[in-house]
Amino acid sequence: MAGNIFGRIFRLTTFGESHGAAVGGIVDGMPSGVAVDVEFIQSELNRRRPGQSKITTPRDEKDQVRILSGVMNGLSTGTPLAFEVLNENQHSNDYANIVDTFRPSHADYTYTEKYGLRDHRGGGRSSARETISRVVAGALAKLVLKHYGVTVEAYTSQIGGIKLAGTYQDYDIAKAEENIVRCPDAEVADKMIALIDEVRMQKDSIGGVITCVVKGMPVGAGDPCFDKLQAMLGHAMMSINAVKGFEYGSGFDGVEMRGSQHNDIFYMEGDRVRTKTNYSGGIQGGISNGEDIYMRVAFKPTATILMAQHTVNAKHEEVETEVKGRHDPCVVPRAVPIVEAMAAITVLDAILVNRCVKL
Amino acid sequence: MAGNIFGRIFRLTTFGESHGAAVGGIVDGMPSGVAVDVEFIQSELNRRRPGQSKITTPRDEKDQVRILSGVMNGLSTGTPLAFEVLNENQHSNDYANIVDTFRPSHADYTYTEKYGLRDHRGGGRSSARETISRVVAGALAKLVLKHYGVTVEAYTSQIGGIKLAGTYQDYDIAKAEENIVRCPDAEVADKMIALIDEVRMQKDSIGGVITCVVKGMPVGAGDPCFDKLQAMLGHAMMSINAVKGFEYGSGFDGVEMRGSQHNDIFYMEGDRVRTKTNYSGGIQGGISNGEDIYMRVAFKPTATILMAQHTVNAKHEEVETEVKGRHDPCVVPRAVPIVEAMAAITVLDAILVNRCVKL
Amino acid sequence: MAGNIFGRIFRLTTFGESHGAAVGGIVDGMPSGVAVDVEFIQSELNRRRPGQSKITTPRDEKDQVRILSGVMNGLSTGTPLAFEVLNENQHSNDYANIVDTFRPSHADYTYTEKYGLRDHRGGGRSSARETISRVVAGALAKLVLKHYGVTVEAYTSQIGGIKLAGTYQDYDIAKAEENIVRCPDAEVADKMIALIDEVRMQKDSIGGVITCVVKGMPVGAGDPCFDKLQAMLGHAMMSINAVKGFEYGSGFDGVEMRGSQHNDIFYMEGDRVRTKTNYSGGIQGGISNGEDIYMRVAFKPTATILMAQHTVNAKHEEVETEVKGRHDPCVVPRAVPIVEAMAAITVLDAILVNRCVKL
Amino acid sequence: MAGNIFGRIFRLTTFGESHGAAVGGIVDGMPSGVAVDVEFIQSELNRRRPGQSKITTPRDEKDQVRILSGVMNGLSTGTPLAFEVLNENQHSNDYANIVDTFRPSHADYTYTEKYGLRDHRGGGRSSARETISRVVAGALAKLVLKHYGVTVEAYTSQIGGIKLAGTYQDYDIAKAEENIVRCPDAEVADKMIALIDEVRMQKDSIGGVITCVVKGMPVGAGDPCFDKLQAMLGHAMMSINAVKGFEYGSGFDGVEMRGSQHNDIFYMEGDRVRTKTNYSGGIQGGISNGEDIYMRVAFKPTATILMAQHTVNAKHEEVETEVKGRHDPCVVPRAVPIVEAMAAITVLDAILVNRCVKL
Repeated sequence: MAGNIFGRIFRLTTFGESHGAAVGGIVDGMPSGVAVDVEFIQSELNRRRPGQSKITTPRDEKDQVRILSGVMNGLSTGTPLAFEVLNENQHSNDYANIVDTFRPSHADYTYTEKYGLRDHRGGGRSSARETISRVVAGALAKLVLKHYGVTVEAYTSQIGGIKLAGTYQDYDIAKAEENIVRCPDAEVADKMIALIDEVRMQKDSIGGVITCVVKGMPVGAGDPCFDKLQAMLGHAMMSINAVKGFEYGSGFDGVEMRGSQHNDIFYMEGDRVRTKTNYSGGIQGGISNGEDIYMRVAFKPTATILMAQHTVNAKHEEVETEVKGRHDPCVVPRAVPIVEAMAAITVLDAILVNRCVKL
Repeated sequence: MAGNIFGRIFRLTTFGESHGAAVGGIVDGMPSGVAVDVEFIQSELNRRRPGQSKITTPRDEKDQVRILSGVMNGLSTGTPLAFEVLNENQHSNDYANIVDTFRPSHADYTYTEKYGLRDHRGGGRSSARETISRVVAGALAKLVLKHYGVTVEAYTSQIGGIKLAGTYQDYDIAKAEENIVRCPDAEVADKMIALIDEVRMQKDSIGGVITCVVKGMPVGAGDPCFDKLQAMLGHAMMSINAVKGFEYGSGFDGVEMRGSQHNDIFYMEGDRVRTKTNYSGGIQGGISNGEDIYMRVAFKPTATILMAQHTVNAKHEEVETEVKGRHDPCVVPRAVPIVEAMAAITVLDAILVNRCVKL
Repeated sequence: MAGNIFGRIFRLTTFGESHGAAVGGIVDGMPSGVAVDVEFIQSELNRRRPGQSKITTPRDEKDQVRILSGVMNGLSTGTPLAFEVLNENQHSNDYANIVDTFRPSHADYTYTEKYGLRDHRGGGRSSARETISRVVAGALAKLVLKHYGVTVEAYTSQIGGIKLAGTYQDYDIAKAEENIVRCPDAEVADKMIALIDEVRMQKDSIGGVITCVVKGMPVGAGDPCFDKLQAMLGHAMMSINAVKGFEYGSGFDGVEMRGSQHNDIFYMEGDRVRTKTNYSGGIQGGISNGEDIYMRVAFKPTATILMAQHTVNAKHEEVETEVKGRHDPCVVPRAVPIVEAMAAITVLDAILVNRCVKL
Repeated sequence: MAGNIFGRIFRLTTFGESHGAAVGGIVDGMPSGVAVDVEFIQSELNRRRPGQSKITTPRDEKDQVRILSGVMNGLSTGTPLAFEVLNENQHSNDYANIVDTFRPSHADYTYTEKYGLRDHRGGGRSSARETISRVVAGALAKLVLKHYGVTVEAYTSQIGGIKLAGTYQDYDIAKAEENIVRCPDAEVADKMIALIDEVRMQKDSIGGVITCVVKGMPVGAGDPCFDKLQAMLGHAMMSINAVKGFEYGSGFDGVEMRGSQHNDIFYMEGDRVRTKTNYSGGIQGGISNGEDIYMRVAFKPTATILMAQHTVNAKHEEVETEVKGRHDPCVVPRAVPIVEAMAAITVLDAILVNRCVKL
């Protein structure tokens, strides 16, 4: 109920603040018999690690994952799989000046009101370090999804006003990992990087959009009514820090289409039922139809900017605040593996739930 | 797990197909001592009723709600509040020709694959009648929210390419109920109605956007991490049939802003902490900050169109299908009370959950 | 959270007070493709019906179940299966004298304190009529369990001080349905009936024990740690009105045994792993081992007795109360199908959950 | 769903096998503002520690708890409170001979069948070390309960055939901590210790009963229907390894009483509604009435005995097995703090849920 548990069968509980001993989590419902490839999990974590390039925060966090339970001889046992990543390299002093100050568009004010107190160091629970646990669990989910032939890939499709012109089908998504902004078109990537760099020099920040694609989905995952697959995906994505919007398939653009254009015509491809177009985004009536699931996730500009800002403190006095320290001018490049992780957890969970539906 | 339960404290379970005996639901977690105003509930239901205007389906469904439990002498008792609406005026024969045919962009194919069989009559569980239960529960939630001074209002802000130019603050939302498309600007409403009418004559359909605003929220509702208030709202909205996208606050447009523009500066208004702008959409770190919560919900064009379409049947033969019967050329006007209902249920639930947070 | 939902995959939500319009429930998670035999469901309901014999309450409630959704052409569709039983034959006046009085060992005082108000008519939600929904859902569970070859049977093994001497293996449980106290030994049954009759004449009441046996369980159902199969069964049984104790396998008597006696020795019976004794009660480490699951459930004497009692009223004055009306001097005979129902729901749920465990 | 999560508002997720890196858990829903007294938590852990006396296993486990998150400056922050206890002093070789053998009345066979593989070392997840997490979370719950004036105390009331003659009111429960068997009557304690010692010398084991009492409960905790307070307590207790039975209030003995004896007569004690007797065990209609809650929990004799036993191995051959290593001849003395922990978690959870009930 307190919101740190996600999933129904593949159920993740996470913990950890920026400046506590560790961040981590427990996956309760990891299927047994899965090869738990720790190197793969670490490689996923490395993708979200700060300090990986000039356009991310210069913090250097090693973020080594350690598995505490649920694995024997490299195989998952079906019991809770707990993991942790120690917090290191903490500059608590960076936050001394905000103990009492509510940074604009941060969670400082709302946490203080909700809980009566807050851990001000590094944003406490609202820190970006919270996403470490998502990435680890997402990597575990991907390891299971491999057995179903399901892949999950995401990439940066927009930074500020710079957008990719094509849809996901126009790119080789794997190429996104070849540049630091994670955009599969090298030329556009360069422009995005230049924009982030410019914004960074201005001590400002910028937002962007991540596109995520799930391929190889079996038909039948997702539940009618409240737990439609798109509702679970929307929940998952909207729960990521800084996300402001979610759409799948035709999305917001679809509202301007006519039904006669938008309807995806069924046909047979060999013995497989397919659709000619895929405005449905691979989901019909809340249930996967076997076509690609694709979605777009909007991220706001990072709230932390290195300029003086007017604000209010805990005594309800109006004051100036100036954040120091090391921050991302744009969260989007590092959020790509986080979006993938949440998508992987969500579709795996839906696949597992679907096992219980028929006699 | 099967997806027909929503909410954590204020928990709604729904049931019902288009052509069964009834649709309805149970609210488990209705606070005790609330005056259950059945006339108000019925008036909300009437807002979603088919046949209310020339731009909605000509079906005439009376949809009288009946409360079965949980109320004594007009007050909620705190025990489960069950309700039902009988199904009447069913034309099962309208569906005889689709027993075996998968209508494009409907749930026919996915239901059949998921469950091994499906109720083809009127779309079965994926029928729009499923939303009746949402509206009844939403009306109950609104009755509770009144005690908190919270209001929930929605309106049509876009139909096809016709959009309202202003934000929600530019309109008197109450005026939306004065026209059949539920748009608060009478002039724009006329254009929207004309467009829907045109599309209807073409036997086609069209989509649109609904904007929803929650005012008077107490500070502190919503939970960090996975159950952020925007994540619960996103889940709620994405679970409505035909919804393709959700955004709140600055939404997708926010990605193009700089942090220095987007950050909402705190100031004191008397003894209340306020923000000068509200790009945050009333939620920071997943928790309400007392400002208005506003969101936009995108609806695709109705899948049911009265034209012949190519498709596949249950024997996996390619066939033509032509749907007969009575349908909405645009679901948006009738979806306004549904969006309000889901928002009301979600914010009330978050308010109740928040009671358990402090010592 | 408000406690009217039970189960994880096969999830039952119930509603209804004694004197509202109806009692009923929704099963969300009924597997699709099950033949929903309404006659069987009604026959199960008839087993719990009041007025069936001289030792039960003389109320005459027909209790006809009506299914509202989730079934087409006699098969479950996998969507929510809602059902209701109308309340009839209500003597609200019987309760006029207890509007304001807290009957001893009833829920009158605690409901009033918890909710601030209560439905005094017929015990409101704490009425025995609440169990109708359990029996209907239990019948649905039994219909599914048939496909697994699992049977659930219960019988009266003790009334007051009169006990069956043997264990469940010593009797043909089916014979329990041949007498009105539901005890499989006709001679002991006669003594039990005589005792209940005697107590009834004294306007008093008496308790008893029900033994329940689940045969044909597949190996592997039940989860380690908090949701051990015996924990779910304990939860299920302790949630029945008037139940004071639960034990399975060797139970309370097992505490006096030595490990060397109590351990169930494994051996091979053909290619099946069996145990020579079954003190484990068919569950080891929280997981079914394929042997019979057996348990005992203790019921207190009915709180409603037809004598004057001293008590306190809502104004906190000490008063005399005298309950009138029609009541069971012993709930045990009618509770037999309720115990079976809760066992059936619980083991089915565990079987379904177990589908998600392996890769 | 996989059974390693307990509680609704105060929600505990646990992890850990005997021979993994650590055992531990996460409490999601710890109220904010509670002084987290680590010394108290450690002292509770020490009560369950092996090696504390001659009648417990001679293993020497230090079991130092470490808190990883959710606390700042000694106060809970309302965010997930994670903790871990490292596994040390593991003699994996002790288990080499049971890699492939199903020990009688252990979980070896059922785990293997359920998951397709199992961690054989030290019982894996079914190890008694799993209870460490329960005790830590229970200590946290007790720290919160202090603010409500609620206390939870348990003691050994029976070992084998040796029973305390009186009820909990006849003893000073605090005295139970003065002897190694945790029985509040020193004389009976001596007999119990002698019995355990005798059984230990015989390489055998023995069971017993723990009585637990909750005092100071506010009125109104617990929910009608499926989540009655006694059902939650029953669930909690039955989920402890080796528990075979649960009863509260009059329990199994109550079945032989007449209603006229068993009914608890209300009276006024000053302005407080009280009952003269308390056969109800402090709970009526599933809801606490403010009287003491008391319950009895039956433990079977430890399955691990140091004798040769006949059994079956993973190849389904009949074999002899002889367990070596260090084991408790009776789990009861060390289970006393575990029973308290589960009771504390359960009643706290019910108290928190009750905050959401009224308008």
